[in-house]
Amino acid sequence: MQIAFQGEIGAFSEEATLALYPSSTPLARVAFEDVFRQVAEGAVDRGVIPIENTLFGSVHVNYDLLRAYDLAIESELYLRVRHNLMALPGTKLSDIRRVMSHPQALGQCQAFLKEHLAHAEAVPAYDTAGAAKMVAAEGNPAEAAIASERAAQEYRLEILARGIESNHQNFTRFLGLVRADAPDRRRPDPALGPIKTSIVYAMRENVPGALFKSLAVFALRDLDLFKIESRPLVGSPGKYLFYLDVGGAETDEPVRQALGHLSEIAAEVRVLGSYRKADIG
Amino acid sequence: MQIAFQGEIGAFSEEATLALYPSSTPLARVAFEDVFRQVAEGAVDRGVIPIENTLFGSVHVNYDLLRAYDLAIESELYLRVRHNLMALPGTKLSDIRRVMSHPQALGQCQAFLKEHLAHAEAVPAYDTAGAAKMVAAEGNPAEAAIASERAAQEYRLEILARGIESNHQNFTRFLGLVRADAPDRRRPDPALGPIKTSIVYAMRENVPGALFKSLAVFALRDLDLFKIESRPLVGSPGKYLFYLDVGGAETDEPVRQALGHLSEIAAEVRVLGSYRKADIG
Repeated sequence: MQIAFQGEIGAFSEEATLALYPSSTPLARVAFEDVFRQVAEGAVDRGVIPIENTLFGSVHVNYDLLRAYDLAIESELYLRVRHNLMALPGTKLSDIRRVMSHPQALGQCQAFLKEHLAHAEAVPAYDTAGAAKMVAAEGNPAEAAIASERAAQEYRLEILARGIESNHQNFTRFLGLVRADAPDRRRPDPALGPIKTSIVYAMRENVPGALFKSLAVFALRDLDLFKIESRPLVGSPGKYLFYLDVGGAETDEPVRQALGHLSEIAAEVRVLGSYRKADIG
Repeated sequence: MQIAFQGEIGAFSEEATLALYPSSTPLARVAFEDVFRQVAEGAVDRGVIPIENTLFGSVHVNYDLLRAYDLAIESELYLRVRHNLMALPGTKLSDIRRVMSHPQALGQCQAFLKEHLAHAEAVPAYDTAGAAKMVAAEGNPAEAAIASERAAQEYRLEILARGIESNHQNFTRFLGLVRADAPDRRRPDPALGPIKTSIVYAMRENVPGALFKSLAVFALRDLDLFKIESRPLVGSPGKYLFYLDVGGAETDEPVRQALGHLSEIAAEVRVLGSYRKADIG
């Protein structure tokens, strides 16, 4: 299977792709929209995108693309964003004078750098995998990068320290996407574990209680909610999009009825797919 | 007034600081936590932080810091993230061979670059204001940056094209923070416009309908909700934090009663402050 992801080879998205679809061939793409378009056109078999991060929130642009393209969510994964210090093979900590990485990663590893690499300069790079690539290309033993384990493998760097971020609660949720009408689209099997259905909806009016009413359709049927998020619509004061993940498959009777009920009172309801629920960590 | 913000001089956060507190002195800090700590310690008078972006979601790390420090939200602002092409004064579009900016900004201006600067190379930088700083420092007329208007002023660059991003719906919401017990803490005046109160809460149990129950305390009192977001707690399966913005001041009777009611059924309720509601765009 050929699977498109956004980012450089060695990026966390590539790691997520291989975890979601072992023995697939991940293909690096420049923009998220390239991933969606190529799945929609059948140029690749699947796409893998990040949808939210436990420290940095939801990727609204990918929710927008989910609404724009006729793809379905087929799988999900929470990937721990684990930062590793890497350098040319044989490098010692005391050799390192410059540590390159994305500013977010440098920030997350500040305590480690202060304790173990106080003599080195932190150099911001545009991307963690890009920093690893640079260290490998320059071949300078005074340089190190902070990046994923996958980046170390890809660029043949040696990991000097693993999991050096201070906050270990940094997880990114990734989704596997497939054409809604693909003959090999994976349908979740309730015998294998809990199932989740993701939807996006908008309410017709902005009256106090519109959100409350929309949640009532799930609460009245004792359905679990795993995510609810409002997003203001720019240019439409008082209008919101809602993202919601509910327990169960869209073909389950209570979910089907709740979605029917929601359609009666909402301006737009879009079911993004049913898939096996993953756990964080 | 001395106001701490995170980022480089010329960053969008500095622009937000000056818009929220005109004639204040913005002070650039490296990390978000520096901003919180310095406000809490009284080293500065206020802090300004981004809390969410219409394309890239909520900044959970800042919600965490809001829970950890005893600060109050005093003001809010939606700032349009407007990207401008800038270079040394006198530079023509046809001179430019390299355009530097943060990868997100380069991506957002891809269509403009394709149409007007197809001959130039896009070079990723770690920060938009940092790219402007570099163009100014290198003094090479073949280089340009994509950054804020404020960055152009700061680094004395000339803006060759304004608002070159394809999606004009990119807004970041900023909050002004003050010590909860500061004698000059600004209290919102209902005569000047609608007021909003931000809270963070956690429910005691993860039963279907716990979220629904918590929203009932607001819906039963006809209170408007402007934001609701669930955030899974890493390491506590099934546990969530909820972010909620409700219409009215925490001292208003219906809000006070709703918060009292919520405290009865929630494991934790934290009021982050009441302040004048801003509009997007």
